[in-house]
Amino acid sequence: MTDIKVLRLDRADHVRNDPSLLAAAASDGAIFLLLDGLTPRFDAAGRIAWSRLSNAPADAERVFLGMDGGRGCFALIPQTSDGASMRSVRDLAGQLDAGDFSAYSMARSLLDWHVRQRFCSRCGFTTTVAKGGWQRNCANSKCAAVHYPRTDPVVIMTVEWAGEGGEPQLLLGRQAGFPPGMYSALAGFVEPGETIEAAVAREVHEEAGLAVRDVRYISSQSWPFPSQLMIGCHAICDDGAITTNSDELEDARWFSRSQVSEAMLGNGPGPVSVPPTYAIAHWLIARWLAATGTCAPQ
Amino acid sequence: MTDIKVLRLDRADHVRNDPSLLAAAASDGAIFLLLDGLTPRFDAAGRIAWSRLSNAPADAERVFLGMDGGRGCFALIPQTSDGASMRSVRDLAGQLDAGDFSAYSMARSLLDWHVRQRFCSRCGFTTTVAKGGWQRNCANSKCAAVHYPRTDPVVIMTVEWAGEGGEPQLLLGRQAGFPPGMYSALAGFVEPGETIEAAVAREVHEEAGLAVRDVRYISSQSWPFPSQLMIGCHAICDDGAITTNSDELEDARWFSRSQVSEAMLGNGPGPVSVPPTYAIAHWLIARWLAATGTCAPQ
Repeated sequence: MTDIKVLRLDRADHVRNDPSLLAAAASDGAIFLLLDGLTPRFDAAGRIAWSRLSNAPADAERVFLGMDGGRGCFALIPQTSDGASMRSVRDLAGQLDAGDFSAYSMARSLLDWHVRQRFCSRCGFTTTVAKGGWQRNCANSKCAAVHYPRTDPVVIMTVEWAGEGGEPQLLLGRQAGFPPGMYSALAGFVEPGETIEAAVAREVHEEAGLAVRDVRYISSQSWPFPSQLMIGCHAICDDGAITTNSDELEDARWFSRSQVSEAMLGNGPGPVSVPPTYAIAHWLIARWLAATGTCAPQ
Repeated sequence: MTDIKVLRLDRADHVRNDPSLLAAAASDGAIFLLLDGLTPRFDAAGRIAWSRLSNAPADAERVFLGMDGGRGCFALIPQTSDGASMRSVRDLAGQLDAGDFSAYSMARSLLDWHVRQRFCSRCGFTTTVAKGGWQRNCANSKCAAVHYPRTDPVVIMTVEWAGEGGEPQLLLGRQAGFPPGMYSALAGFVEPGETIEAAVAREVHEEAGLAVRDVRYISSQSWPFPSQLMIGCHAICDDGAITTNSDELEDARWFSRSQVSEAMLGNGPGPVSVPPTYAIAHWLIARWLAATGTCAPQ
Protein backbone atom coordinates (compact mmCIF):
# COMPACT_ATOMS: atom_id res chain seq x y z
CA MET A 1 0.00 0.00 0.00
CA THR A 2 1.52 3.28 -1.09
CA ASP A 3 0.46 6.89 -0.82
CA ILE A 4 -1.35 7.06 -4.15
CA LYS A 5 -4.10 9.63 -4.69
CA VAL A 6 -6.48 9.53 -7.63
CA LEU A 7 -7.41 13.09 -8.52
CA ARG A 8 -9.95 12.78 -11.29
CA LEU A 9 -11.04 9.48 -12.77
CA ASP A 10 -11.98 9.82 -16.46
CA ARG A 11 -13.92 6.72 -17.60
CA ALA A 12 -12.15 6.92 -20.98
CA ASP A 13 -14.66 4.72 -22.77
CA HIS A 14 -12.53 4.61 -25.93
CA VAL A 15 -9.76 2.78 -24.05
CA ARG A 16 -12.11 -0.10 -23.12
CA ASN A 17 -12.82 -0.78 -26.77
CA ASP A 18 -9.21 -0.68 -27.99
CA PRO A 19 -6.97 -3.60 -26.93
CA SER A 20 -3.75 -1.70 -27.62
CA LEU A 21 -4.86 1.36 -25.60
CA LEU A 22 -6.00 -0.96 -22.85
CA ALA A 23 -2.63 -2.70 -22.76
CA ALA A 24 -0.88 0.69 -22.65
CA ALA A 25 -3.14 1.81 -19.79
CA ALA A 26 -2.13 -1.29 -17.82
CA SER A 27 1.59 -0.61 -18.20
CA ASP A 28 3.95 1.86 -16.54
CA GLY A 29 2.28 3.76 -13.69
CA ALA A 30 -0.98 1.78 -13.68
CA ILE A 31 -2.66 1.30 -10.29
CA PHE A 32 -5.43 -0.84 -8.79
CA LEU A 33 -7.91 -0.32 -5.99
CA LEU A 34 -7.15 -2.25 -2.80
CA LEU A 35 -10.19 -4.18 -1.63
CA ASP A 36 -11.08 -6.99 0.76
CA GLY A 37 -13.91 -8.62 -1.18
CA LEU A 38 -15.85 -5.49 -2.05
CA THR A 39 -14.80 -3.47 1.01
CA PRO A 40 -12.17 -0.79 0.43
CA ARG A 41 -8.92 -0.49 2.34
CA PHE A 42 -7.94 2.96 3.51
CA ASP A 43 -4.63 4.78 3.49
CA ALA A 44 -3.21 6.73 6.44
CA ALA A 45 -5.10 9.84 5.32
CA GLY A 46 -8.43 8.00 5.39
CA ARG A 47 -8.77 7.85 1.61
CA ILE A 48 -9.41 4.71 -0.42
CA ALA A 49 -6.10 2.95 -0.99
CA TRP A 50 -4.49 2.05 -4.34
CA SER A 51 -1.42 0.04 -5.21
CA ARG A 52 0.79 -0.37 -8.29
CA LEU A 53 -0.76 -2.78 -10.77
CA SER A 54 2.65 -4.47 -10.95
CA ASN A 55 1.96 -5.66 -7.36
CA ALA A 56 -1.27 -7.44 -8.36
CA PRO A 57 -1.35 -11.25 -8.71
CA ALA A 58 -0.48 -12.14 -12.31
CA ASP A 59 -3.59 -14.29 -12.76
CA ALA A 60 -6.07 -11.74 -11.41
CA GLU A 61 -8.91 -10.74 -13.72
CA ARG A 62 -9.23 -6.99 -13.82
CA VAL A 63 -11.60 -4.24 -14.85
CA PHE A 64 -10.53 -0.89 -16.27
CA LEU A 65 -12.00 1.94 -14.20
CA GLY A 66 -10.56 4.81 -16.23
CA MET A 67 -7.59 7.13 -16.56
CA ASP A 68 -6.26 9.43 -13.84
CA GLY A 69 -4.13 11.79 -15.87
CA GLY A 70 -1.79 9.48 -17.78
CA ARG A 71 -2.12 6.35 -15.65
CA GLY A 72 -4.68 3.59 -15.93
CA CYS A 73 -6.82 2.74 -12.87
CA PHE A 74 -8.02 -0.83 -12.39
CA ALA A 75 -9.79 -3.11 -9.90
CA LEU A 76 -9.46 -6.88 -9.53
CA ILE A 77 -12.48 -9.15 -9.77
CA PRO A 78 -12.92 -11.02 -6.45
CA GLN A 79 -13.98 -14.66 -6.21
CA THR A 80 -17.12 -13.77 -4.27
CA SER A 81 -18.82 -10.57 -3.20
CA ASP A 82 -18.63 -10.11 0.53
CA GLY A 83 -21.71 -9.96 2.71
CA ALA A 84 -21.25 -6.36 3.84
CA SER A 85 -24.06 -5.43 6.20
CA MET A 86 -26.15 -2.31 5.65
CA ARG A 87 -24.43 -0.94 8.72
CA SER A 88 -20.99 -1.06 7.15
CA VAL A 89 -22.42 0.29 3.90
CA ARG A 90 -23.71 3.31 5.81
CA ASP A 91 -20.36 3.74 7.49
CA LEU A 92 -18.58 3.62 4.14
CA ALA A 93 -20.87 6.09 2.41
CA GLY A 94 -20.44 8.56 5.24
CA GLN A 95 -16.68 8.13 5.37
CA LEU A 96 -15.64 8.71 1.75
CA ASP A 97 -15.28 12.08 0.06
CA ALA A 98 -17.18 12.71 -3.18
CA GLY A 99 -14.37 11.73 -5.55
CA ASP A 100 -13.50 8.56 -3.64
CA PHE A 101 -17.17 7.62 -3.32
CA SER A 102 -17.66 8.01 -7.06
CA ALA A 103 -14.61 5.88 -7.95
CA TYR A 104 -15.47 3.26 -5.34
CA SER A 105 -19.14 3.22 -6.43
CA MET A 106 -18.20 2.43 -10.00
CA ALA A 107 -15.70 -0.25 -8.97
CA ARG A 108 -18.02 -1.89 -6.45
CA SER A 109 -21.04 -2.08 -8.78
CA LEU A 110 -18.92 -3.41 -11.62
CA LEU A 111 -17.10 -6.04 -9.52
CA ASP A 112 -20.30 -7.22 -7.88
CA TRP A 113 -21.85 -7.61 -11.33
CA HIS A 114 -18.86 -9.72 -12.49
CA VAL A 115 -19.31 -12.06 -9.54
CA ARG A 116 -23.04 -12.40 -10.33
CA GLN A 117 -22.50 -12.85 -14.06
CA ARG A 118 -19.91 -15.63 -14.21
CA PHE A 119 -22.45 -17.72 -16.14
CA CYS A 120 -24.61 -16.90 -19.14
CA SER A 121 -28.17 -16.29 -17.95
CA ARG A 122 -29.48 -17.37 -21.35
CA CYS A 123 -27.74 -20.76 -21.76
CA GLY A 124 -25.96 -21.51 -18.46
CA PHE A 125 -22.47 -21.68 -20.02
CA THR A 126 -19.48 -19.80 -18.54
CA THR A 127 -18.81 -16.20 -19.52
CA THR A 128 -15.51 -14.39 -20.03
CA VAL A 129 -14.42 -10.81 -19.38
CA ALA A 130 -14.42 -8.46 -22.40
CA LYS A 131 -13.91 -4.75 -23.16
CA GLY A 132 -11.79 -4.00 -20.13
CA GLY A 133 -14.42 -5.45 -17.78
CA TRP A 134 -17.42 -3.55 -19.15
CA GLN A 135 -18.82 -6.61 -20.86
CA ARG A 136 -18.93 -10.39 -20.41
CA ASN A 137 -19.33 -12.74 -23.36
CA CYS A 138 -20.91 -16.18 -23.33
CA ALA A 139 -18.20 -18.72 -24.17
CA ASN A 140 -20.74 -21.03 -25.88
CA SER A 141 -20.37 -20.23 -29.58
CA LYS A 142 -23.94 -21.39 -30.27
CA CYS A 143 -25.28 -18.77 -27.83
CA ALA A 144 -22.66 -15.97 -27.85
CA ALA A 145 -24.87 -13.74 -25.70
CA VAL A 146 -23.30 -10.46 -24.61
CA HIS A 147 -23.90 -9.24 -21.05
CA TYR A 148 -23.57 -5.68 -19.79
CA PRO A 149 -23.24 -4.29 -16.25
CA ARG A 150 -26.55 -3.67 -14.60
CA THR A 151 -27.82 -0.33 -13.25
CA ASP A 152 -31.26 -0.40 -11.66
CA PRO A 153 -33.29 2.83 -11.65
CA VAL A 154 -35.05 3.56 -8.34
CA VAL A 155 -37.44 6.44 -7.70
CA ILE A 156 -37.28 8.14 -4.30
CA MET A 157 -39.70 10.97 -3.55
CA THR A 158 -40.78 13.64 -1.15
CA VAL A 159 -44.59 13.96 -1.16
CA GLU A 160 -46.27 17.14 0.04
CA TRP A 161 -49.82 17.67 1.28
CA ALA A 162 -51.29 21.08 2.09
CA GLY A 163 -52.54 19.69 5.42
CA GLU A 164 -55.87 20.30 7.10
CA GLY A 165 -54.66 23.43 8.85
CA GLY A 166 -53.04 24.81 5.72
CA GLU A 167 -49.55 24.03 7.00
CA PRO A 168 -47.54 21.97 4.50
CA GLN A 169 -46.89 18.37 5.51
CA LEU A 170 -44.22 15.94 4.29
CA LEU A 171 -44.81 12.20 3.86
CA LEU A 172 -42.09 10.01 5.39
CA GLY A 173 -42.10 6.32 6.15
CA ARG A 174 -39.98 3.78 7.95
CA GLN A 175 -39.04 0.21 7.08
CA ALA A 176 -38.69 -2.32 9.86
CA GLY A 177 -34.94 -2.54 9.27
CA PHE A 178 -34.26 1.20 9.73
CA PRO A 179 -32.39 2.41 12.82
CA PRO A 180 -34.83 3.21 15.66
CA GLY A 181 -36.81 6.41 15.05
CA MET A 182 -35.53 6.95 11.49
CA TYR A 183 -38.02 8.00 8.82
CA SER A 184 -37.17 8.57 5.17
CA ALA A 185 -38.61 9.32 1.75
CA LEU A 186 -40.52 6.43 0.13
CA ALA A 187 -38.70 4.66 -2.69
CA GLY A 188 -38.97 1.76 -5.11
CA PHE A 189 -37.59 0.23 -8.31
CA VAL A 190 -38.80 1.50 -11.68
CA GLU A 191 -40.47 -1.48 -13.38
CA PRO A 192 -40.44 -2.54 -17.04
CA GLY A 193 -42.91 -0.43 -19.05
CA GLU A 194 -42.96 2.51 -16.62
CA THR A 195 -41.91 6.15 -16.85
CA ILE A 196 -40.23 7.83 -13.86
CA GLU A 197 -43.45 9.72 -13.17
CA ALA A 198 -45.61 6.58 -13.30
CA ALA A 199 -43.23 4.74 -10.97
CA VAL A 200 -43.47 7.57 -8.40
CA ALA A 201 -47.27 7.49 -8.51
CA ARG A 202 -47.41 3.68 -8.25
CA GLU A 203 -44.96 3.44 -5.35
CA VAL A 204 -46.72 6.13 -3.27
CA HIS A 205 -50.04 4.42 -3.94
CA GLU A 206 -48.70 0.95 -3.12
CA GLU A 207 -46.89 1.95 0.06
CA ALA A 208 -49.15 4.64 1.51
CA GLY A 209 -52.45 4.40 -0.40
CA LEU A 210 -52.11 7.99 -1.65
CA ALA A 211 -52.76 9.50 -5.09
CA VAL A 212 -50.20 12.07 -6.24
CA ARG A 213 -49.97 14.61 -9.05
CA ASP A 214 -47.38 17.00 -10.51
CA VAL A 215 -44.39 14.66 -10.13
CA ARG A 216 -41.18 16.66 -10.61
CA TYR A 217 -37.60 15.46 -10.97
CA ILE A 218 -35.21 17.00 -8.42
CA SER A 219 -31.80 15.25 -8.62
CA SER A 220 -30.09 11.87 -8.90
CA GLN A 221 -27.44 9.84 -7.11
CA SER A 222 -25.54 6.65 -7.79
CA TRP A 223 -25.93 4.13 -4.98
CA PRO A 224 -23.62 1.14 -5.41
CA PHE A 225 -25.22 -1.34 -2.99
CA PRO A 226 -25.37 -3.12 -5.35
CA SER A 227 -26.08 -0.89 -8.38
CA GLN A 228 -28.92 1.60 -8.06
CA LEU A 229 -29.48 4.87 -9.89
CA MET A 230 -31.49 6.86 -7.33
CA ILE A 231 -33.88 9.25 -9.12
CA GLY A 232 -35.08 11.89 -6.65
CA CYS A 233 -38.53 13.42 -7.25
CA HIS A 234 -41.18 15.56 -5.58
CA ALA A 235 -44.97 15.13 -5.87
CA ILE A 236 -48.16 16.73 -4.54
CA CYS A 237 -50.96 14.90 -2.74
CA ASP A 238 -54.49 16.36 -2.39
CA ASP A 239 -56.05 13.84 0.02
CA GLY A 240 -53.87 12.99 3.01
CA ALA A 241 -55.61 9.84 4.25
CA ILE A 242 -52.73 7.34 4.51
CA THR A 243 -53.18 3.57 4.34
CA THR A 244 -49.79 2.07 5.24
CA ASN A 245 -48.89 -1.12 3.37
CA SER A 246 -47.49 -3.24 6.19
CA ASP A 247 -45.70 -5.55 3.72
CA GLU A 248 -43.46 -2.64 2.73
CA LEU A 249 -43.44 -0.18 5.63
CA GLU A 250 -43.68 -0.31 9.39
CA ASP A 251 -45.20 3.18 9.44
CA ALA A 252 -45.91 6.13 7.13
CA ARG A 253 -47.12 9.50 8.31
CA TRP A 254 -47.25 13.24 7.71
CA PHE A 255 -44.67 15.51 9.34
CA SER A 256 -44.90 19.29 9.73
CA ARG A 257 -42.02 21.61 8.81
CA SER A 258 -41.07 22.03 12.44
CA GLN A 259 -41.08 18.27 13.03
CA VAL A 260 -38.88 17.73 9.97
CA SER A 261 -36.55 20.59 10.98
CA GLU A 262 -36.11 19.05 14.42
CA ALA A 263 -35.35 15.66 12.92
CA MET A 264 -32.81 17.23 10.52
CA LEU A 265 -31.06 19.22 13.22
CA GLY A 266 -31.20 16.59 15.95
CA ASN A 267 -27.89 15.48 17.38
CA GLY A 268 -27.82 11.99 18.77
CA PRO A 269 -30.82 9.65 18.86
CA GLY A 270 -33.92 11.84 19.16
CA PRO A 271 -37.44 10.49 18.89
CA VAL A 272 -37.41 11.00 15.10
CA SER A 273 -34.40 11.17 12.74
CA VAL A 274 -33.87 11.35 8.98
CA PRO A 275 -31.12 9.78 6.83
CA PRO A 276 -27.66 11.37 7.05
CA THR A 277 -26.13 13.66 4.46
CA TYR A 278 -24.63 10.95 2.25
CA ALA A 279 -28.15 9.81 1.27
CA ILE A 280 -30.14 11.56 -1.46
CA ALA A 281 -33.18 11.31 0.86
CA HIS A 282 -31.49 13.82 3.17
CA TRP A 283 -31.14 16.36 0.36
CA LEU A 284 -34.66 15.84 -0.95
CA ILE A 285 -35.99 16.52 2.56
CA ALA A 286 -33.67 19.54 3.00
CA ARG A 287 -34.83 20.92 -0.35
CA TRP A 288 -38.48 20.59 0.75
CA LEU A 289 -37.75 22.49 3.95
CA ALA A 290 -36.03 25.26 1.98
CA ALA A 291 -38.77 25.41 -0.65
CA THR A 292 -41.64 25.61 1.84
CA GLY A 293 -39.80 28.14 4.02
CA THR A 294 -40.51 31.03 1.67
CA CYS A 295 -43.59 32.53 0.04
CA ALA A 296 -42.32 31.58 -3.41
CA PRO A 297 -44.31 28.95 -5.31
CA GLN A 298 -42.43 25.66 -5.48
CA MET B 1 -59.09 -14.30 -30.61
CA THR B 2 -62.06 -12.44 -29.18
CA ASP B 3 -63.02 -8.80 -28.99
CA ILE B 4 -61.43 -8.13 -25.60
CA LYS B 5 -60.34 -4.61 -24.68
CA VAL B 6 -58.14 -3.83 -21.70
CA LEU B 7 -59.17 -0.43 -20.38
CA ARG B 8 -56.71 0.25 -17.59
CA LEU B 9 -54.04 -2.14 -16.47
CA ASP B 10 -53.29 -1.83 -12.74
CA ARG B 11 -49.98 -3.60 -11.94
CA ALA B 12 -51.49 -4.76 -8.60
CA ASP B 13 -48.15 -5.55 -7.02
CA HIS B 14 -49.82 -7.12 -3.95
CA VAL B 15 -51.32 -9.85 -6.13
CA ARG B 16 -47.86 -11.00 -7.33
CA ASN B 17 -46.78 -11.67 -3.77
CA ASP B 18 -49.89 -13.56 -2.65
CA PRO B 19 -50.35 -17.06 -4.13
CA SER B 20 -54.07 -17.16 -3.32
CA LEU B 21 -54.76 -13.77 -4.91
CA LEU B 22 -52.66 -14.82 -7.90
CA ALA B 23 -54.68 -18.02 -8.30
CA ALA B 24 -57.92 -16.02 -8.06
CA ALA B 25 -56.66 -13.56 -10.68
CA ALA B 26 -56.01 -16.49 -13.05
CA SER B 27 -59.54 -17.87 -12.71
CA ASP B 28 -62.89 -16.75 -14.14
CA GLY B 29 -62.51 -13.95 -16.67
CA ALA B 30 -58.71 -13.95 -16.82
CA ILE B 31 -57.13 -13.09 -20.17
CA PHE B 32 -53.71 -13.31 -21.84
CA LEU B 33 -51.93 -11.28 -24.48
CA LEU B 34 -51.73 -12.93 -27.90
CA LEU B 35 -48.17 -12.88 -29.20
CA ASP B 36 -46.05 -14.53 -31.88
CA GLY B 37 -42.73 -14.72 -30.07
CA LEU B 38 -42.62 -11.17 -28.76
CA THR B 39 -44.67 -9.61 -31.60
CA PRO B 40 -48.29 -8.74 -30.78
CA ARG B 41 -51.28 -9.92 -32.73
CA PHE B 42 -53.94 -7.33 -33.51
CA ASP B 43 -57.73 -7.49 -33.36
CA ALA B 44 -60.06 -6.21 -36.10
CA ALA B 45 -59.98 -2.72 -34.54
CA GLY B 46 -56.16 -2.60 -34.74
CA ARG B 47 -55.66 -2.97 -30.99
CA ILE B 48 -53.41 -5.57 -29.34
CA ALA B 49 -55.35 -8.82 -29.10
CA TRP B 50 -56.15 -10.81 -25.94
CA SER B 51 -57.74 -14.21 -25.42
CA ARG B 52 -59.33 -16.03 -22.48
CA LEU B 53 -56.67 -17.61 -20.26
CA SER B 54 -58.72 -20.81 -20.38
CA ASN B 55 -57.65 -21.03 -24.06
CA ALA B 56 -53.93 -21.01 -23.19
CA PRO B 57 -51.89 -24.26 -23.31
CA ALA B 58 -52.08 -25.89 -19.86
CA ASP B 59 -48.28 -26.20 -19.57
CA ALA B 60 -47.51 -22.59 -20.54
CA GLU B 61 -45.48 -20.57 -18.05
CA ARG B 62 -47.13 -17.22 -17.48
CA VAL B 63 -46.45 -13.79 -16.05
CA PHE B 64 -49.04 -11.66 -14.28
CA LEU B 65 -49.28 -8.24 -15.95
CA GLY B 66 -51.92 -6.81 -13.61
CA MET B 67 -55.67 -6.37 -13.12
CA ASP B 68 -58.08 -4.76 -15.57
CA GLY B 69 -61.06 -4.09 -13.33
CA GLY B 70 -61.83 -7.49 -11.78
CA ARG B 71 -59.99 -9.70 -14.27
CA GLY B 72 -56.38 -10.80 -14.24
CA CYS B 73 -54.21 -10.07 -17.31
CA PHE B 74 -51.36 -12.42 -18.20
CA ALA B 75 -48.76 -13.15 -20.88
CA LEU B 76 -47.13 -16.48 -21.73
CA ILE B 77 -43.35 -16.92 -21.65
CA PRO B 78 -42.15 -17.88 -25.15
CA GLN B 79 -39.39 -20.42 -25.79
CA THR B 80 -37.22 -17.82 -27.52
CA SER B 81 -37.45 -14.11 -28.15
CA ASP B 82 -37.99 -13.35 -31.81
CA GLY B 83 -35.50 -11.40 -33.85
CA ALA B 84 -37.76 -8.44 -34.53
CA SER B 85 -35.92 -5.94 -36.71
CA MET B 86 -35.68 -2.30 -35.71
CA ARG B 87 -37.95 -1.60 -38.66
CA SER B 88 -40.81 -3.64 -37.21
CA VAL B 89 -40.14 -2.19 -33.78
CA ARG B 90 -40.65 1.28 -35.26
CA ASP B 91 -43.82 0.15 -37.00
CA LEU B 92 -45.15 -1.29 -33.74
CA ALA B 93 -44.38 1.77 -31.65
CA GLY B 94 -46.12 4.02 -34.17
CA GLN B 95 -49.14 1.74 -34.46
CA LEU B 96 -50.19 1.27 -30.82
CA ASP B 97 -52.18 3.77 -28.75
CA ALA B 98 -50.72 4.88 -25.41
CA GLY B 99 -52.57 2.32 -23.25
CA ASP B 100 -51.77 -0.58 -25.58
CA PHE B 101 -48.14 0.53 -25.89
CA SER B 102 -47.77 0.66 -22.12
CA ALA B 103 -49.28 -2.81 -21.59
CA TYR B 104 -47.30 -4.30 -24.46
CA SER B 105 -44.08 -2.60 -23.28
CA MET B 106 -44.36 -4.16 -19.85
CA ALA B 107 -45.17 -7.60 -21.27
CA ARG B 108 -42.43 -7.49 -23.90
CA SER B 109 -39.66 -6.41 -21.52
CA LEU B 110 -40.71 -8.95 -18.93
CA LEU B 111 -41.00 -11.87 -21.37
CA ASP B 112 -37.71 -11.04 -23.05
CA TRP B 113 -36.06 -11.00 -19.62
CA HIS B 114 -37.51 -14.45 -18.82
CA VAL B 115 -36.02 -15.87 -22.02
CA ARG B 116 -32.63 -14.34 -21.16
CA GLN B 117 -32.72 -15.44 -17.51
CA ARG B 118 -33.52 -19.15 -17.77
CA PHE B 119 -30.20 -19.84 -16.05
CA CYS B 120 -28.66 -18.43 -12.91
CA SER B 121 -25.96 -15.94 -13.89
CA ARG B 122 -24.17 -16.62 -10.60
CA CYS B 123 -23.91 -20.44 -10.67
CA GLY B 124 -25.17 -21.59 -14.08
CA PHE B 125 -28.05 -23.71 -12.67
CA THR B 126 -31.61 -23.44 -14.01
CA THR B 127 -34.01 -20.83 -12.63
CA THR B 128 -37.75 -21.05 -12.01
CA VAL B 129 -40.54 -18.48 -12.26
CA ALA B 130 -41.63 -16.84 -8.97
CA LYS B 131 -43.93 -14.04 -7.80
CA GLY B 132 -46.25 -14.10 -10.77
CA GLY B 133 -43.33 -13.74 -13.20
CA TRP B 134 -41.68 -10.74 -11.52
CA GLN B 135 -38.84 -12.84 -10.14
CA ARG B 136 -36.83 -15.95 -11.05
CA ASN B 137 -35.18 -18.09 -8.39
CA CYS B 138 -32.07 -20.21 -8.78
CA ALA B 139 -33.07 -23.86 -8.34
CA ASN B 140 -29.67 -24.74 -6.84
CA SER B 141 -30.26 -24.70 -3.09
CA LYS B 142 -26.58 -23.94 -2.43
CA CYS B 143 -26.84 -20.74 -4.48
CA ALA B 144 -30.52 -19.69 -4.22
CA ALA B 145 -29.83 -16.38 -6.01
CA VAL B 146 -32.90 -14.28 -6.74
CA HIS B 147 -33.13 -12.50 -10.10
CA TYR B 148 -35.29 -9.49 -10.95
CA PRO B 149 -36.38 -8.04 -14.29
CA ARG B 150 -33.91 -5.63 -15.77
CA THR B 151 -34.59 -1.98 -16.67
CA ASP B 152 -31.65 -0.08 -18.15
CA PRO B 153 -31.56 3.70 -17.71
CA VAL B 154 -30.53 5.61 -20.85
CA VAL B 155 -29.99 9.37 -21.07
CA ILE B 156 -31.10 11.15 -24.25
CA MET B 157 -30.50 14.85 -24.57
CA THR B 158 -31.00 17.98 -26.60
CA VAL B 159 -27.91 20.19 -26.43
CA GLU B 160 -28.14 23.90 -27.19
CA TRP B 161 -25.41 26.30 -28.25
CA ALA B 162 -25.91 30.06 -28.60
CA GLY B 163 -24.26 29.92 -32.01
CA GLU B 164 -21.75 32.32 -33.51
CA GLY B 165 -24.45 34.59 -34.92
CA GLY B 166 -26.44 34.55 -31.68
CA GLU B 167 -29.08 32.26 -33.17
CA PRO B 168 -29.68 29.18 -30.99
CA GLN B 169 -28.42 25.90 -32.44
CA LEU B 170 -29.42 22.32 -31.60
CA LEU B 171 -26.99 19.38 -31.61
CA LEU B 172 -28.26 16.32 -33.47
CA GLY B 173 -26.40 13.26 -34.66
CA ARG B 174 -26.96 10.23 -36.83
CA GLN B 175 -25.92 6.62 -36.40
CA ALA B 176 -25.02 4.61 -39.48
CA GLY B 177 -28.13 2.44 -39.02
CA PHE B 178 -30.63 5.32 -39.07
CA PRO B 179 -32.97 5.78 -42.06
CA PRO B 180 -31.35 8.04 -44.70
CA GLY B 181 -31.27 11.69 -43.65
CA MET B 182 -32.53 11.08 -40.11
CA TYR B 183 -30.84 12.93 -37.25
CA SER B 184 -31.75 12.56 -33.58
CA ALA B 185 -30.77 13.53 -30.05
CA LEU B 186 -27.60 11.85 -28.74
CA ALA B 187 -28.15 9.08 -26.19
CA GLY B 188 -26.37 6.45 -24.14
CA PHE B 189 -26.64 4.09 -21.19
CA VAL B 190 -26.14 5.38 -17.65
CA GLU B 191 -23.13 3.50 -16.26
CA PRO B 192 -22.49 2.14 -12.75
CA GLY B 193 -21.42 4.95 -10.41
CA GLU B 194 -22.93 7.78 -12.49
CA THR B 195 -25.69 10.31 -11.88
CA ILE B 196 -28.08 11.24 -14.69
CA GLU B 197 -26.32 14.59 -15.04
CA ALA B 198 -22.85 13.00 -15.22
CA ALA B 199 -24.03 10.49 -17.82
CA VAL B 200 -25.36 13.32 -20.03
CA ALA B 201 -22.05 15.18 -19.82
CA ARG B 202 -19.99 12.04 -20.52
CA GLU B 203 -22.08 10.93 -23.51
CA VAL B 204 -22.00 14.37 -25.19
CA HIS B 205 -18.27 14.53 -24.62
CA GLU B 206 -17.67 10.98 -25.90
CA GLU B 207 -19.84 11.28 -28.99
CA ALA B 208 -19.32 14.90 -30.05
CA GLY B 209 -16.31 16.15 -28.05
CA LEU B 210 -18.37 18.90 -26.41
CA ALA B 211 -18.48 20.10 -22.80
CA VAL B 212 -21.98 20.85 -21.43
CA ARG B 213 -23.38 22.56 -18.34
CA ASP B 214 -26.77 23.10 -16.70
CA VAL B 215 -28.15 19.62 -17.44
CA ARG B 216 -31.90 19.63 -16.85
CA TYR B 217 -34.35 16.72 -16.74
CA ILE B 218 -37.27 17.11 -19.16
CA SER B 219 -39.31 13.86 -19.28
CA SER B 220 -39.02 10.08 -19.45
CA GLN B 221 -40.32 7.21 -21.56
CA SER B 222 -40.30 3.44 -21.33
CA TRP B 223 -38.78 1.83 -24.42
CA PRO B 224 -39.21 -1.94 -24.42
CA PHE B 225 -36.66 -2.93 -27.06
CA PRO B 226 -35.54 -4.67 -24.92
CA SER B 227 -35.95 -2.78 -21.63
CA GLN B 228 -34.80 0.83 -21.57
CA LEU B 229 -35.93 3.70 -19.34
CA MET B 230 -35.31 6.73 -21.57
CA ILE B 231 -34.42 9.77 -19.44
CA GLY B 232 -34.84 12.93 -21.53
CA CYS B 233 -32.63 15.92 -20.64
CA HIS B 234 -31.50 19.28 -21.96
CA ALA B 235 -28.04 20.82 -21.61
CA ILE B 236 -26.17 23.96 -22.63
CA CYS B 237 -22.88 24.06 -24.54
CA ASP B 238 -20.61 27.13 -24.61
CA ASP B 239 -18.07 26.07 -27.24
CA GLY B 240 -19.61 24.58 -30.39
CA ALA B 241 -16.52 22.95 -31.95
CA ILE B 242 -17.72 19.39 -32.60
CA THR B 243 -15.41 16.38 -32.84
CA THR B 244 -17.57 13.48 -34.02
CA ASN B 245 -16.65 10.09 -32.57
CA SER B 246 -16.87 7.90 -35.66
CA ASP B 247 -17.14 4.73 -33.55
CA GLU B 248 -20.52 5.94 -32.30
CA LEU B 249 -21.90 8.36 -34.87
CA GLU B 250 -21.76 8.82 -38.63
CA ASP B 251 -22.24 12.56 -38.20
CA ALA B 252 -23.06 15.17 -35.55
CA ARG B 253 -23.78 18.81 -36.28
CA TRP B 254 -25.57 21.97 -35.24
CA PHE B 255 -29.00 22.79 -36.65
CA SER B 256 -30.74 26.17 -36.59
CA ARG B 257 -34.37 26.56 -35.48
CA SER B 258 -35.52 26.87 -39.08
CA GLN B 259 -33.61 23.74 -40.11
CA VAL B 260 -35.12 21.79 -37.21
CA SER B 261 -38.62 23.15 -37.95
CA GLU B 262 -38.34 22.03 -41.55
CA ALA B 263 -37.20 18.57 -40.49
CA MET B 264 -40.10 18.31 -38.00
CA LEU B 265 -42.73 19.42 -40.50
CA GLY B 266 -41.37 17.59 -43.51
CA ASN B 267 -43.68 15.07 -45.14
CA GLY B 268 -41.96 12.27 -46.97
CA PRO B 269 -38.21 11.85 -47.25
CA GLY B 270 -36.68 15.32 -47.17
CA PRO B 271 -32.95 15.92 -46.96
CA VAL B 272 -33.10 15.89 -43.14
CA SER B 273 -35.70 14.25 -40.88
CA VAL B 274 -36.12 13.68 -37.13
CA PRO B 275 -37.61 10.69 -35.28
CA PRO B 276 -41.41 10.29 -35.42
CA THR B 277 -43.83 11.17 -32.63
CA TYR B 278 -43.62 7.83 -30.79
CA ALA B 279 -39.99 8.54 -29.85
CA ILE B 280 -39.08 10.71 -26.88
CA ALA B 281 -36.42 12.34 -29.12
CA HIS B 282 -39.24 13.88 -31.16
CA TRP B 283 -40.74 15.53 -28.10
CA LEU B 284 -37.40 16.73 -26.75
CA ILE B 285 -36.73 18.41 -30.11
CA ALA B 286 -40.28 19.84 -30.25
CA ARG B 287 -39.89 21.22 -26.72
CA TRP B 288 -36.63 22.92 -27.72
CA LEU B 289 -38.33 24.55 -30.71
CA ALA B 290 -41.15 25.78 -28.48
CA ALA B 291 -38.79 27.01 -25.76
CA THR B 292 -36.53 28.94 -28.14
CA GLY B 293 -39.48 30.39 -30.05
CA THR B 294 -40.26 32.98 -27.38
CA CYS B 295 -38.31 35.62 -25.49
CA ALA B 296 -38.74 33.74 -22.22
CA PRO B 297 -35.58 32.35 -20.63
CA GLN B 298 -35.45 28.56 -20.88
